[in-house]
Order: sequence, then C-alpha cells, then structure tokens
Amino acid sequence: MIIQKSDNLRISTFDPENFSFGNTFVDHMVICEFENGKWGEPKIVPYGPLGFSPAMMGINYGQACFEGMKAYKDKDGDVFLFRPEKNFARINKSASRLAMPEVTEEMFMDGIKTLVDMERAWIPHGEGLSLYIRPLIFATEEILKARISEKYMFAVVATPAKSYYTEPVSVKIAEYYSRSANGGVGFAKAAGNYAAAFHPTRLAMEEGYDQIVWTDDSTHQYLEESGTMNVFVRINDTIYTPPISEKILDGVTRDSFIQLAQSLQMNVQVEPISVDVVMEAQKNGTLREMWGVGTAVVTTVFKSFGFQNEKYDLPELSDEDSYALTIKNKLTSIQSNLCEDPFGWRLKVEKNN
Amino acid sequence: MIIQKSDNLRISTFDPENFSFGNTFVDHMVICEFENGKWGEPKIVPYGPLGFSPAMMGINYGQACFEGMKAYKDKDGDVFLFRPEKNFARINKSASRLAMPEVTEEMFMDGIKTLVDMERAWIPHGEGLSLYIRPLIFATEEILKARISEKYMFAVVATPAKSYYTEPVSVKIAEYYSRSANGGVGFAKAAGNYAAAFHPTRLAMEEGYDQIVWTDDSTHQYLEESGTMNVFVRINDTIYTPPISEKILDGVTRDSFIQLAQSLQMNVQVEPISVDVVMEAQKNGTLREMWGVGTAVVTTVFKSFGFQNEKYDLPELSDEDSYALTIKNKLTSIQSNLCEDPFGWRLKVEKNN
Repeated sequence: MIIQKSDNLRISTFDPENFSFGNTFVDHMVICEFENGKWGEPKIVPYGPLGFSPAMMGINYGQACFEGMKAYKDKDGDVFLFRPEKNFARINKSASRLAMPEVTEEMFMDGIKTLVDMERAWIPHGEGLSLYIRPLIFATEEILKARISEKYMFAVVATPAKSYYTEPVSVKIAEYYSRSANGGVGFAKAAGNYAAAFHPTRLAMEEGYDQIVWTDDSTHQYLEESGTMNVFVRINDTIYTPPISEKILDGVTRDSFIQLAQSLQMNVQVEPISVDVVMEAQKNGTLREMWGVGTAVVTTVFKSFGFQNEKYDLPELSDEDSYALTIKNKLTSIQSNLCEDPFGWRLKVEKNN
Repeated sequence: MIIQKSDNLRISTFDPENFSFGNTFVDHMVICEFENGKWGEPKIVPYGPLGFSPAMMGINYGQACFEGMKAYKDKDGDVFLFRPEKNFARINKSASRLAMPEVTEEMFMDGIKTLVDMERAWIPHGEGLSLYIRPLIFATEEILKARISEKYMFAVVATPAKSYYTEPVSVKIAEYYSRSANGGVGFAKAAGNYAAAFHPTRLAMEEGYDQIVWTDDSTHQYLEESGTMNVFVRINDTIYTPPISEKILDGVTRDSFIQLAQSLQMNVQVEPISVDVVMEAQKNGTLREMWGVGTAVVTTVFKSFGFQNEKYDLPELSDEDSYALTIKNKLTSIQSNLCEDPFGWRLKVEKNN
C-alpha cells in the first residue's frame, strides 16, 4: 500500500457536534486501478477530484457498484468495523453480475482498515455516531462502445455519520413501479438500481409517503424491499422477512436481525410475504409491526402503509414491546462495543498509523 | 455558448483510413452544468478529463443516461444529422425517469450543431462512415446519500465511426436473464441498463452466440430487444416488431424502419411477438428473417438463433430478397444524402465556424 499523505489536513476544522453527513469527507481515500487484466498497488491519497472525461464508461454504461459499512468508536477510543467480510463478499457478487473484476480480500480489507486507522480522529463517539465507509468499483475506460470495460477503479471514501435515529415513516406498497426484474440485478448494489428508484420514490413522497415497499414486478403481490432497506413484518409474535434472491439484497443488517431475533427466542420465518397476508393481518388486528433495516439507519419503523389508495396505521409500540426496537438496540450495542459480541461480529481496527 | 478552443488540436494526426472507433475523440466537447435548480451556460471546451471524486453520485447511484446519434458527410462535404429531435425527446424521457433535470432543446441542439460544425474535419466520408455523437447527462454532486442529486452535467463527446457493416450474427433467446422489469427503466437509455446486460451477454458468447434476444422477465415468452438494438422478425412476407413500452426502447432506427417498410409497401405489424410464434414459423418454414436495428450498426442480420439448447439456422437471403437489407440500404442512402429525403429526416449542419 502506497500512502501519500495530504499536505492540507482538514481534520482540525471538523466539529463532531456540527457536521453535514455525506459530504464531509475524511482527509484521505483509497484508490486502486485495474488495467491489463490486473489490479495495481492500492494507494491512500488525499480525498479529492481525479481526472475523468464524460466518456468514462462508468457513467455511460453503468458498470459501477458499491458497499456501505460503518466504523464505530467506543468509550475508550477503540474503533470497530462490523462484519466487514460480508461487505467484501457482496461487493464481489455485485461486481461479477456487472461483469467487473472482483477485488482481492487483501486490497479490500487492508484498504479499509488502513484508511479507518489513519482517519480515526474523524470518527465521532456517541450513541448512533459512526464513520460511514463507501467502497466502490467503477469502470474508468474512456470509450464509446457498449461492451465490458477494460479499466476500473476501486476506491474507498468515508464520511462521519450522525445518529441513525429516524422518525417512524409512512410507506407505500408499490403497485406499478418496481426495482428489480427476474434474471436482473436487484440483488446487487449496482449503481443503476438506486437511480431507477428515485422517480417512483419522489412520486410516493408527493402522495405523502416517505418511501416505497417494493413488490415483485410480475404480480406486485410479494414484498421485496423497502426504500433501500430489507423489510420485516411482524404478525402476532412471528417475524417474517422474504428470503434473499436474485431480486433482493443480501443485507448485512438483515442477516444480523435474523440471527439476533433467533438468539432472543423470537419466532422468525424467512419466507415470501404476500400483500394479501399483510392486508388480512391488518384487517384482523394481528399486524403488529413493519420495519426496514439497513446499514445507514439500522432500523426504520413504519407508522403506516398505503395500499390501493388507502392508508393504514400500524400500532405504536413501546421500545420494550417492539421487536424491531428490541433487536435494533441489541445490534447497536454490539456494534458500539457496549456489550458482549457472542457472534464475533466486531473487528477491531488496530492502531498502526 | 462559450467556446474555449484547444491550443493543442489533434486533427492533423487523424487518419480517416486508419483510426480506432470509440476512443478517438474529436478535439472538443460540450459541457454544461446544472446547479441551484438550473442549467448554466453551455461551453465548448477541449476534450479531456474533468475533476470528479469517487463520491460523484453518477457512479454511486447511477443517475446517468445518454443518447447515440450520428452525423454523415456527403460527397460535397456537407454534413447532416439524422432526426436529432428524436434523440432530444428521448434523452429527456430517460432523464425524467431517473429523476434528473431535462435539458433544453436549445442547449441540446445548439451544442450538437456547434460541436459538429467545429469538428467537421473529423467526419470521415464514405459508405457507412460517420461521426458518432454521444450526448449524456450525469449526476455530479459529491455526497454519500441515496437521494436525488442536486448537481448534474450535460456533455457531448464524439468519435469518428467506421463502416457499420457487421457479419450476420447468432443470437440466443433469453430464458433466464432479462434486461427490464415491469414498472422499471427498460425504455430509458439509462446507464445501468447496459452494465446489467454485459454478464449475460458474456455467458451467451461463451456458448458461441454474439448477442441475446431479450424476453420479458415474467414469462420469457415475448421478444423485447436484441443486444442493444430493437428486434424485427419476418414471417412469410410480414414484418413484426414489438410495440414500444416501458420495457422497450423507442429506437430512432426502429421507427425509421417501420416508416420505410410501409413506404415500400411491405406489411408491418407492430405487435407482441412470442417465442412460440417464432418457433412455429421456424418449424413450418415460414420464418424468413430476423434482425436487430440501432444507430450504431443500423442493421444486424441474424444467421441463427438459439432456444432451449438448440440452434436454428435462418435462411441466407440476397440483398434484394432481404427485407432487412432492402430497408437498411434505403435508410443509409437517406442518411448520407445519396437520395431524396421524403420524410424530412436529414438536418443539414450549417457552416458557422
């Protein structure tokens, strides 16, 4: 790993009490270039612009995928990643589906650990605070041919992240738009999947919703995801979440929720959930909770959902009665080193820099 | 329009007899930036790299769409665009679906006309030669939030293009993979649609095919497109092509083929084509031709197609007997100003620079 330290560090201007999430970038980033069939040497360089022309394949043909992960600082100032090996495995699944080269475990893990170690001063400490880490791979060849690129960049950029507390949201069950196709790329964190969701989401917002619960594009009968999160439904005391598939992202938070629910003796069914079943439970009063999970906010509780021009309220449960919040609290305690880690999910970032 | 001429023109090194398509860029490009809710002044600047960080939204969340169009030079050196108003309309359809701002007709048309006029020395003259023009819009804001970007760039880059002659190809009818979903973005020239097709296409190539005939993702029973082209089937003396829809691109070449076929008194049916109908025609000997159409190659004739692990040969027809080649020859004659233009499709690029 080549390290080119910035001559113009911005860390002294960083106020952990008052910063903008998403566009406050830590001083450095990881970059690594793929050319002639192989990855070069990874580098840590000052965060900033690189030279790309508008003919860059990544923005013309969409060969681009990413990961989202976080580093957490505990009361002693130690820093932990959360299940980073899951992100490593997934970025390569995304890359393969988009005909992009896989990254090596060494460049992925060492790049992230070195960057996080160097930038630990940028990681705010406190409930729900973290460093959001964005590894990505994108095609950099400059050529106007709709074929697989021969040049790529792997990069890791990072931004301090605020408390993930979000107000309960109102969601709309999709009846026309969809985010994935059978035989498509819905399971991948492909750049194009996100852009495709923005317009339908904006329309739902204009109707007073916060996000869309995506359903299968063939029948709009089966729940897939919610916004950019995996979705859970609780009917009576059983939690349901759809199985991962080519259309549904294999979320790290989703998997952690399932394992934690089981360890808490909750009944979890990983099986397709139909809109009919949700509506029946709504009608007979057994629909207790619905929520989304993802790295960014951990959990978003749904306060209501819309279906066929009707809006239905969900019960307001206390933190203790809510399965969603019970599991979330357990998960965030593990992430922030506030409790034991029986699953071995935390990975301490050693101090080397 | 602001024009910043290059101090380092490369045109003197351009050999129209020997160049590489797609990565030989003309000396200048058009760029225009969108910020604070509006487009700025378009500029013509030297072609080359601009500064973008890996946090650029276009490569993270896929808000990026493009157009493909050509300029043709006739024997007198006059230069013509072909139905550019169709590309203008379509880039805005793509942009809207991806929650991106529409471009104005003025910036789109003036940008292209000014660039083509300035770069007319880069346009090779001769059968099938042209200048390939790539307008695109992409999100440029640098922020790690999966939401609509607030900054964009419109750009136009261009590369000289060689003869569009291609050998007849062998295609595989998709039975597992798909390129579009109901309620998705298949009709848009969205960057992500192309990347999603690369891996399935590579697998088809490994089986000895050149491209994939995409079918609907729900049943794989209805033909959608072929590779990056619209698809046509001739059974007996009737031409069939699927109607445009949310899943099928509204191709300029497709529309021109339909109008030309009608003007040539051919019978054209714009209706869904099922694999069953194609297979039945194959079995009873009435399947005469299949072909794809698009701006890049105008027409690609299919010599065979694969379905359920069987490969079926299509008849080899002479240029006169082939509807595909008859229409193609008529179309390319209009494009290159070798004949009358009864439809008013050509647009002469005036000399101003």
